[in-house]
Amino acid sequence: MDRFGWVPSVGGNISVRLDAERIAITRSGGRKGFLTREGVMVVDLHGASLTEGGRPSAETGLHCQIYRAFPDVGAVLHGHSIAATVLSRVVEGDGIVLSGYEMIKAFAGQTTHEARVVVPLLDNDQDIDRLSGIVAGRLNGPVPGYVLRGHGVYAWGRDADQALMHLEALEFLLDCEFQARKIN
Amino acid sequence: MDRFGWVPSVGGNISVRLDAERIAITRSGGRKGFLTREGVMVVDLHGASLTEGGRPSAETGLHCQIYRAFPDVGAVLHGHSIAATVLSRVVEGDGIVLSGYEMIKAFAGQTTHEARVVVPLLDNDQDIDRLSGIVAGRLNGPVPGYVLRGHGVYAWGRDADQALMHLEALEFLLDCEFQARKIN
Amino acid sequence: MDRFGWVPSVGGNISVRLDAERIAITRSGGRKGFLTREGVMVVDLHGASLTEGGRPSAETGLHCQIYRAFPDVGAVLHGHSIAATVLSRVVEGDGIVLSGYEMIKAFAGQTTHEARVVVPLLDNDQDIDRLSGIVAGRLNGPVPGYVLRGHGVYAWGRDADQALMHLEALEFLLDCEFQARKIN
Amino acid sequence: MDRFGWVPSVGGNISVRLDAERIAITRSGGRKGFLTREGVMVVDLHGASLTEGGRPSAETGLHCQIYRAFPDVGAVLHGHSIAATVLSRVVEGDGIVLSGYEMIKAFAGQTTHEARVVVPLLDNDQDIDRLSGIVAGRLNGPVPGYVLRGHGVYAWGRDADQALMHLEALEFLLDCEFQARKIN
Repeated sequence: MDRFGWVPSVGGNISVRLDAERIAITRSGGRKGFLTREGVMVVDLHGASLTEGGRPSAETGLHCQIYRAFPDVGAVLHGHSIAATVLSRVVEGDGIVLSGYEMIKAFAGQTTHEARVVVPLLDNDQDIDRLSGIVAGRLNGPVPGYVLRGHGVYAWGRDADQALMHLEALEFLLDCEFQARKIN
Repeated sequence: MDRFGWVPSVGGNISVRLDAERIAITRSGGRKGFLTREGVMVVDLHGASLTEGGRPSAETGLHCQIYRAFPDVGAVLHGHSIAATVLSRVVEGDGIVLSGYEMIKAFAGQTTHEARVVVPLLDNDQDIDRLSGIVAGRLNGPVPGYVLRGHGVYAWGRDADQALMHLEALEFLLDCEFQARKIN
Repeated sequence: MDRFGWVPSVGGNISVRLDAERIAITRSGGRKGFLTREGVMVVDLHGASLTEGGRPSAETGLHCQIYRAFPDVGAVLHGHSIAATVLSRVVEGDGIVLSGYEMIKAFAGQTTHEARVVVPLLDNDQDIDRLSGIVAGRLNGPVPGYVLRGHGVYAWGRDADQALMHLEALEFLLDCEFQARKIN
Repeated sequence: MDRFGWVPSVGGNISVRLDAERIAITRSGGRKGFLTREGVMVVDLHGASLTEGGRPSAETGLHCQIYRAFPDVGAVLHGHSIAATVLSRVVEGDGIVLSGYEMIKAFAGQTTHEARVVVPLLDNDQDIDRLSGIVAGRLNGPVPGYVLRGHGVYAWGRDADQALMHLEALEFLLDCEFQARKIN
């Protein structure tokens, strides 16, 4: 994620499920491209710290929501790309429509580029509980991810490898939509 | 290809001819930038697996078509760049016209930048047999490659090095055309 | 900074506070991505060389100004990004307004993306004393940095790590504003 | 140069002066980012091969012209960037005007960003002798480089390090001009 410029400054969060009750997640602050063991803590599925002295990031709640909703999800990635940030500010409404892209097939269940999929697009909110409530209604679409306006992308998968494949596919498609809007 | 961002997510395929009857090709799925020996299988020139338990990617058929058509081709590369993906969706018709670029000389037989060459541009199709039939009529032009709309680029050469040189030249030229369209 | 393309050619300067009276700073000229021990010299807080034979860069004065103004600043970074350079030439007036970006929270004291912050934007000037005088009136805003028109970005922090986090956040936000202006 | 994408495919040439009569230069073809000892040959200042079996690139003549014109030049770099290629095709006339950029000071003799410098812009030509004749009249301006339309950039310096500093400054400035044209 760092190599692609998706975790600039202190942005982004990475988590992996340890077992049915616990996840490892990056702490608040710190540059994710310089991540060390000390930059990771353990929380339960409701975001309560299981690491002594640990203060979870406010966005830990969004990670936990995904793990609670999908018992087979093993990893959640959250990044801040320029493409997703800018695109999400110019697209109106609550979804980014994608169709005609071969890359759509990177999402499970999509077998043709002719599919029309909608990436959920939600207004950013500092009240994570309120935001989680809105996200809840959008988790079950064909895309294993969503976009927060002016903020970034969440993506998930059964393990870290698949979550990265989903994030890369989503960022690729969002960047295509972003670049297309620069053409006259 | 990974370094340039041309094999995002599970996109892209890479193959090399082993001998007159066999090619080694990347399996379906998997991130090509993390490719290991296990991610490669052997098929015959009609795409039938010669590796126990191997399931070739659907696009193996497009690779095999190129090896059958050109006995001197030793490698085929297929990538998904943002430039080719977006450009191919805004260019109408069945070709991308290039002229006035020194880089055209990277294609065999082109001795001047004043040449006008057309990169074949084909609609994407999930029916690989049908798509192969359409590709068949476009393989013999001056450009050792073609573009699938909303999908990506195929390029080939006598060995992997030359195939990469052709792919890089083609992606450079497509990116120039793409960027030029962003200028008012 | 080199990896992101922010110190092209001989551009940019990097400094770190050694103690209350001295800073280490890159010398004039030289490519910062190839920096060696010989490329660094020591100056006092007024820019006078404490290294035998050393000639400080003209911009050393802007670094010293920041260290004098903020006793808790431990590092100052100055880069030349294409985004900041071009954006600063098309934005009129003396500030670049940012709002609606989650990344704003990377700046101390900003707790919501709804904040509206202004990045100071100053005309470039070869008279560093005169420029320092103008900069002086703009140092105390919420953004730990400023932009010189057609020139680049200054950012600072309590140590080199935090200065880099601030620079990355600022460059990310400037790039978002820059890219947004390319969209029709 | 490879890292920045300036020598795609078989594009670009790199040369270094060995002494008053000889230069080492990259051979025709081959990817410059994979350069080995075998990819380099020695020629005299008129481009005649001093390496047994060596065939100099057609563009060797443009390198030699620069070494003959400037006895203190120790290295010449020629690359193909997308920015320079596309910009050179949309700018009319025989020069690219730069002013208001701090980076102009990277060129010897420029002491202020307020300087207005013109980068020579020449139509590409496969007749290198004819092209050299046109280049001859443009070598003595303030910019240690020039642009061939639809082709790329030449830059030089007293040694390879300085030539790279000049090339980086020139590419930075051309990219700024290119990006500025994408803004509405």
